[in-house]
Amino acid sequence: MKKIILLILDGLGDRPLDSLGGKTPLQAARKKNLNALSSMGMVGLLDPISPGIRPGSDTAHLSLLGYDPFKVYTGRGPFEALGLGMELKPGDIAFRGNFATVDDQMRVIDRRAGRIESGTDELAKSLNMEIDGVEIMVKEGVEHRAGVVFRGEGLSPDVTDVDPHEEGRRVLESKPIKPEAKRTAEIVNKFIVKSYEILDNHPVNMKRRKEGKKPANIIMLRGAGIVPEIENFNKKYNLKGACIVGVPLLSGLCRLAGMDVLKVPGVTGTVNTNMENKIRYAIDALRDYDFILINIKATDVAGHDGNGNLKKEIIERIDGAVAPLLENLDRVTLMVTGDHSTPCSVKDHTGDPLPVMVVTEGIRRDGIDQFDEISAARGSLRIRGSDVMNILMNYSERAEKFGA
Amino acid sequence: MKKIILLILDGLGDRPLDSLGGKTPLQAARKKNLNALSSMGMVGLLDPISPGIRPGSDTAHLSLLGYDPFKVYTGRGPFEALGLGMELKPGDIAFRGNFATVDDQMRVIDRRAGRIESGTDELAKSLNMEIDGVEIMVKEGVEHRAGVVFRGEGLSPDVTDVDPHEEGRRVLESKPIKPEAKRTAEIVNKFIVKSYEILDNHPVNMKRRKEGKKPANIIMLRGAGIVPEIENFNKKYNLKGACIVGVPLLSGLCRLAGMDVLKVPGVTGTVNTNMENKIRYAIDALRDYDFILINIKATDVAGHDGNGNLKKEIIERIDGAVAPLLENLDRVTLMVTGDHSTPCSVKDHTGDPLPVMVVTEGIRRDGIDQFDEISAARGSLRIRGSDVMNILMNYSERAEKFGA
Repeated sequence: MKKIILLILDGLGDRPLDSLGGKTPLQAARKKNLNALSSMGMVGLLDPISPGIRPGSDTAHLSLLGYDPFKVYTGRGPFEALGLGMELKPGDIAFRGNFATVDDQMRVIDRRAGRIESGTDELAKSLNMEIDGVEIMVKEGVEHRAGVVFRGEGLSPDVTDVDPHEEGRRVLESKPIKPEAKRTAEIVNKFIVKSYEILDNHPVNMKRRKEGKKPANIIMLRGAGIVPEIENFNKKYNLKGACIVGVPLLSGLCRLAGMDVLKVPGVTGTVNTNMENKIRYAIDALRDYDFILINIKATDVAGHDGNGNLKKEIIERIDGAVAPLLENLDRVTLMVTGDHSTPCSVKDHTGDPLPVMVVTEGIRRDGIDQFDEISAARGSLRIRGSDVMNILMNYSERAEKFGA
Repeated sequence: MKKIILLILDGLGDRPLDSLGGKTPLQAARKKNLNALSSMGMVGLLDPISPGIRPGSDTAHLSLLGYDPFKVYTGRGPFEALGLGMELKPGDIAFRGNFATVDDQMRVIDRRAGRIESGTDELAKSLNMEIDGVEIMVKEGVEHRAGVVFRGEGLSPDVTDVDPHEEGRRVLESKPIKPEAKRTAEIVNKFIVKSYEILDNHPVNMKRRKEGKKPANIIMLRGAGIVPEIENFNKKYNLKGACIVGVPLLSGLCRLAGMDVLKVPGVTGTVNTNMENKIRYAIDALRDYDFILINIKATDVAGHDGNGNLKKEIIERIDGAVAPLLENLDRVTLMVTGDHSTPCSVKDHTGDPLPVMVVTEGIRRDGIDQFDEISAARGSLRIRGSDVMNILMNYSERAEKFGA
């Protein structure tokens, strides 16, 4: 039985770039270690969800870990709250919130409270409360954004948004979409009123008014979703799993699946992340764990920036960082792939397939000695995210036989 | 409209072997006929169920014949009973049984009755009976193993095992897992007591005691499963189907699907099987049938033995045996593949994909003139078991158009 490392280079897939002579960043990069690994294993193309589907990092990772995102992805509320580092429990109702400016008639003056840049941490803290036995937690996000979580008995996500999505209109009353959501809608409405009472005179807003800025004197909720009950990853696969990821959305998602989240010094989720440390820590952690998911976000960041040269350089740094994996192939089943393509020419996620390799002792070698989008198409794998865990379980000698 | 031959080389797929210079048995084998067939058709890789899933022969064959094994595979009881050659009907409840030794307090002394080697046929025969209108059939298997089938109205597979799985403990009472299984559990418990009454004084056990051997004086049941209602193969595809297979598990499965089972002299399910006869009989049988499934088990046997040279030799014998197929391509649509990989390095089934070819007059030729795991990856097929019958129906001009 082997240990498993699943190395996800976030947003890895790309398209040809003029600035790289018509090559993708992966094609253009010097990457002797990734090529060496590729030549020792089975290579091919992966569709994280299914061909053409444009995945988020969240839905893609769910799929790669063997969960059907069409079943467990319950909307942006819960997954954005996870992304803010909020600790969620199955059954919690999570909303996307935004701090806004309203007049004393509750008419929206600015949906983004002048794109408020500081002080939202204090505002958020002042809104943690309990209403009718429901615990409400608020966490600030970027600019005017926030996550809001309701925890308690008998809650439902089937309530309408209070954000009118238009300035000049009054904040809406939340209404139940289904009868069982009546109580949740009432609590939303009480919370909105309370938020105005608390925020309108909050010192942060006193100061903003003095500086001629719009006060963030209400929080509006939308995108309610229930935190899904996700089958425990360790039980599902009978192994002990951990993740090494820099992005709160992904660590939250792995935690929700019951995996341990390993803290590694220097891991930031930016282009300057210490990727060498991630790989070294993962190898060390194999003492205690059977399965390690590593996510390196930097490739995706470069893709969103549309910076092909940066993406190429990051891939070259990753190539250096993966060297220790080559020395551990006697005890590790390794998969290297991405969660989605983020082509520099698009600056956003696309549904293009990704190169993927599986390397383990004794596996068939299909002779693909260049690890890139085009070479991979000549390999033997043509798989979907939902196949990934089955393949890793098979090659690590952990799969149970189905039948006789 | 063409006739169809589906030739399954059991456990065909393999991994590189040092003893074969880093080649798989299929790569290493001289196989001019298989290569010639390959060069005349479309080639690629097949996942019998889905990538990475480790199939049994039973679940794989179900999938290749167009049945969803996740729906129709109801557990080991029914399929092991089929493997013993028992005639099953949909709705029958089948158990895995084992002859064991108990003391007069029903405490298990030996779960395997001293690995009893003979006489179980007589013991099994003595246990055929009727209890409360339910017909009970027992058939001996290898050593202490047996199949037990309940046939009657209102039976349910949702009962607990009586085998305590531990020596020194008393035989358990079977309990209903669901209320509707109450009667079945009662019959199981009555049958266990009866089995003790009959077996304890059975001449076979008298003799065993005299010889100082442990008596096989009870039969314990576990792994209850209902025999599934499988859609009739001939109706499903509007053709007349038959199989030529040496293994009772597979002939039973084909019979359950409503196919005829053809008896061919010299067919044994071992490495010495007369594979030349199988091919010749299949071609003859095309007079009476539209579809013939041929399974050659020998490749799998060599894989389980971990004998790469033997597997290579068997493939070379198969290559000779398939020669007559080359002369019948004007009237036959042929697929050659396996049901799962049985790599000699693993000695068991794995979830690795298999090479597959479809050959018929006029089909596109994708130029793969070597039929092996690595060359096939460069071909045009990347299919799953569930695609096989659709592809065969298409190329044999039997498929109905879906839509206008």
